[in-house]
Amino acid sequence: MSYTAPTKDMLFAMRELAGLTKIATLPGYEDATPETVEAVLEEAAKFHGEVLAPLNAAGDRQPSSWNDGQVTTTEGFREAFRQFGEGGWQGIVHPAEFGGQGLPKLVAAPCIEMMNAANMSFALCPLLTDGAIEALLTAGSDALKQRYLPRLIAGEWTGTMNLTEPQAGSDLALVRTRADRQADGTYKVSGTKIFITYGEHDMAENIVHLVLARTPDAPEGVKGISLFLVPKFLVNDDGSLGARNDVECVSIEHKLGIKASPTAVLQFGDNGGAVGYLIGEENRGLEYMFVMMNAARFGVGVQGIAISDRAYQQAVGYAKDRVQSRPVDGSAKEAVSIIHHPDVRRMLTEMRALTEGARALALVAAGYSDLAHQSPDAETRARFGAAYEYLVPVIKGWSTEMSLEVTSLGVQVHGGMGFIEETGAAQHYRDARILPIYEGTTAIQANDLIGRKTARDGGAAARGILAEIDQTLEALKEYADGCRNAACSAMLMRLGVARLALGNAVDHVVENTRKDPNAVFGTSVAYLKLTGIVLTGWQMARALIVATQKRDEDEAFYGAKIATAEYFANHILPRASAFEAAVISTTGQDGFLALDEACF
Amino acid sequence: MSYTAPTKDMLFAMRELAGLTKIATLPGYEDATPETVEAVLEEAAKFHGEVLAPLNAAGDRQPSSWNDGQVTTTEGFREAFRQFGEGGWQGIVHPAEFGGQGLPKLVAAPCIEMMNAANMSFALCPLLTDGAIEALLTAGSDALKQRYLPRLIAGEWTGTMNLTEPQAGSDLALVRTRADRQADGTYKVSGTKIFITYGEHDMAENIVHLVLARTPDAPEGVKGISLFLVPKFLVNDDGSLGARNDVECVSIEHKLGIKASPTAVLQFGDNGGAVGYLIGEENRGLEYMFVMMNAARFGVGVQGIAISDRAYQQAVGYAKDRVQSRPVDGSAKEAVSIIHHPDVRRMLTEMRALTEGARALALVAAGYSDLAHQSPDAETRARFGAAYEYLVPVIKGWSTEMSLEVTSLGVQVHGGMGFIEETGAAQHYRDARILPIYEGTTAIQANDLIGRKTARDGGAAARGILAEIDQTLEALKEYADGCRNAACSAMLMRLGVARLALGNAVDHVVENTRKDPNAVFGTSVAYLKLTGIVLTGWQMARALIVATQKRDEDEAFYGAKIATAEYFANHILPRASAFEAAVISTTGQDGFLALDEACF
Repeated sequence: MSYTAPTKDMLFAMRELAGLTKIATLPGYEDATPETVEAVLEEAAKFHGEVLAPLNAAGDRQPSSWNDGQVTTTEGFREAFRQFGEGGWQGIVHPAEFGGQGLPKLVAAPCIEMMNAANMSFALCPLLTDGAIEALLTAGSDALKQRYLPRLIAGEWTGTMNLTEPQAGSDLALVRTRADRQADGTYKVSGTKIFITYGEHDMAENIVHLVLARTPDAPEGVKGISLFLVPKFLVNDDGSLGARNDVECVSIEHKLGIKASPTAVLQFGDNGGAVGYLIGEENRGLEYMFVMMNAARFGVGVQGIAISDRAYQQAVGYAKDRVQSRPVDGSAKEAVSIIHHPDVRRMLTEMRALTEGARALALVAAGYSDLAHQSPDAETRARFGAAYEYLVPVIKGWSTEMSLEVTSLGVQVHGGMGFIEETGAAQHYRDARILPIYEGTTAIQANDLIGRKTARDGGAAARGILAEIDQTLEALKEYADGCRNAACSAMLMRLGVARLALGNAVDHVVENTRKDPNAVFGTSVAYLKLTGIVLTGWQMARALIVATQKRDEDEAFYGAKIATAEYFANHILPRASAFEAAVISTTGQDGFLALDEACF
Repeated sequence: MSYTAPTKDMLFAMRELAGLTKIATLPGYEDATPETVEAVLEEAAKFHGEVLAPLNAAGDRQPSSWNDGQVTTTEGFREAFRQFGEGGWQGIVHPAEFGGQGLPKLVAAPCIEMMNAANMSFALCPLLTDGAIEALLTAGSDALKQRYLPRLIAGEWTGTMNLTEPQAGSDLALVRTRADRQADGTYKVSGTKIFITYGEHDMAENIVHLVLARTPDAPEGVKGISLFLVPKFLVNDDGSLGARNDVECVSIEHKLGIKASPTAVLQFGDNGGAVGYLIGEENRGLEYMFVMMNAARFGVGVQGIAISDRAYQQAVGYAKDRVQSRPVDGSAKEAVSIIHHPDVRRMLTEMRALTEGARALALVAAGYSDLAHQSPDAETRARFGAAYEYLVPVIKGWSTEMSLEVTSLGVQVHGGMGFIEETGAAQHYRDARILPIYEGTTAIQANDLIGRKTARDGGAAARGILAEIDQTLEALKEYADGCRNAACSAMLMRLGVARLALGNAVDHVVENTRKDPNAVFGTSVAYLKLTGIVLTGWQMARALIVATQKRDEDEAFYGAKIATAEYFANHILPRASAFEAAVISTTGQDGFLALDEACF
């Protein structure tokens, strides 16, 4: 099944919802002219659609394989990665100083979506490399930057994030990997890391591992973790590759999905210690890692959108092709293609509504990030920085959770054929299942949303967003009164109810997080999903206003947007009240939270 | 991961909710004494837990394989099937006249749940055999019954259902397989059938295919379909096996899950025609097939409950074992097992609440079926027959849809380990995905619920159930007033709201199915899920009343039941209103149902 990038919907959201024009005027983004942005998206659509998408099924059927410490990736991946690097795709968002294109995140985000929709297993490699680049930019010494960044940004070398150990998953306080300071200022790193995405592979000459470890005199817990750069091959002063470092890939995992992406167990220091270079200062590793993780979390949210769109396209293709049964309304005597059956249409619309809503929110957030970085005004930077931080766990949590629903519907549209692996729908279902887990599970995102993003500022960031939703409701009200549009009326009512539900939940969380932490964290995922539904619904409402105004210009596109927004209003937004009920009615002193462990 | 049958919860639902005592007094069920029922369940728990459960992972890793028309099942399956037959497990529900035990469906249903929880791939073979037995009992001639039933019921031979053809999936009107009448009264069957579960295997001496086909002079469409018995080996008059029939297994499918269960493409009649025996009368095949399908649909609903319970047990085991992070309420300084983290507990409780609710409803329905068959009173038979018919699509549709959610949560509880195949959680996630598809997709169930089960009788059956829910609400009200129990108050409020939502939806469906079929069928799945949530919530409410009364007798069991019911009330029942909104607000004339195909 081929993949066609939804460039039109992306540009719509970038321009009409995320403020591309304004962002293109920010200092440093002068190159992001309308022509350039369109050209980048078109090129990205072409490259990802033509080069990466055709390799997606192959990656599932002939996964990466391990033999004696070497990992061989799926045939074609190596060559595709070479073209990826040459095309400059790794560098879109990174500084021109190190060879990147320095474009806004708002322009990079749709390219990342395309790459992941085309081939999520492949795309994980550049995604992790982005994280390594971010960490080096944030905290790396000039020497490390000069030596590593140009090669990473050029797509010649790749990066990894080494956090997890067998006993330390979500809880990084338990990290035991050890880093011993050497006389020459380097460190000797030893320990075992697991779940290392692209921890070993044959697509690049060198792999730059960023590794969390402890120095011998470090304090216990998360305040004693440092971040080290450990290259697979040491790098000589002239930039050429030197000796093989003491890091070995012991095995790779046999996974439910993303099979082409090797998930490595890495052993550091079995032969005296791997040479590592401290990034930033000792004991501040977690702080730097959060820089990477925040970027990566946004990226994983985009993966959820990407795999959802891919599953949608696959399902639409089948639904237009497969002929079965007469229509229920008696409008034809013969069997019709199944897209004419109401429930198939409902499934496709649900897939699309969830995907478009999440895409719009992610792009809006990308615009916030650009404003937070490049606005000349400090207050604007702070405000959009806080808003972006608030949105990251929502985008990661919601876009990945909804991708489970969307890829499952993608299987369902195919009926029995969906369960047959050759069809391809099942691969998306399997691939998507990792998304609510890695880079922090949905509960970790939800705890972040509650603890750091809602309770800590007393709900200020959340209420800032609620105030913006109120403005949209006001606009919609004026608009709905005039046009008597069924979609606008439905959205006005449903978003209004859902916004109140979110407001109540925010109040509840602010008031109870300290008082009754078990109850609040026991409903954290409901709170996150509530937030996700309301915020993506809000974007659909904004899109609806624009689409209604411009309908005459492009009936097919805007008419579909209006119908999708109406569907979102009547079928998805009403779920908000159910999540509100869960949040509001739970207490930590009785019920399921107080049950004895033996009762389970 | 081992499997321990939830015998206690099953007996609770059988006795307290499904009226086991009353059913055991029905004519023909005299053997179902309390002691016998307990003994059967205990034996079933032992056999399925010890013999079938350990083969479940092996079936996934070494699936059935095809070679030159032969299918070799996973090592151990053949021997397990022999023990299954010898243990009399195939015959539990079937008439003593043909060697069965003639026990009520209410007693068979928990055994079927255990078998499927232990090993769903294995269990499909007996499930299909049950269907073949039902069809023969309904419409087979005495000669066919005498020749085939004793061997099928003894678990010596197995049965299949041959419906689907490449062009005829959900729409059986398109069946093209041909049956030519012969001078001796037999038929020659030729054609291709796909998706035939256990269509070929090595576990039994003979396979009895029930095949839908058309005679040359049959009318078009579903009214021209007849049902034939086509054995793999012809059977001599003395019962010994004769010549190989002209049916060949061309290939088996490569599937997402239930990999040990061979899904065959069968070719009939490539060498002159397979010998087939007409079951019942010509052109009434679909009617007989519906007998099989109704039994099979109930069975697939039970599969959803079974795989959910297996996933729950796996997740609980991991959550008690895995130590990670300190508790959010500061109650311990050290990392604790993750079952102490509120969100893990929330996930486990959600899995459990959905599973227990669906189990209770299925057992209540099984009791209805027993009353419909064996009550001496005609009016009672008719009433419970209608109620059972109403419930079948709900049990099939809801229990399988919720199993997707439960098995997905099962993966999530494991974090990153859930994505690694060796852990086992992923297998349940993959296995479950077929359940909302086969034996009629969720939309097919929903259309049945709307068309034949709600609109046709003007909502009578649905309103009968609503009246019963009102009685439960009355009982709960009296009870809640007295005891000031948080769970009872929550249930009273939430079930009350949800019941109104269902009532509104029933009214809407009755009024609009003819007027606006696209709208009603476009929200049919929402209507089905709404029904599923309210009806399973109703059973949780009934369980809650009993548990509150008996709490002092067994705090661990009843306390957990109360907490689970409270969770169901506050976290699951509120979804009902969201589905109501979807049903009520959709029209067929605009929005997504009216969009041009090209807009997708």
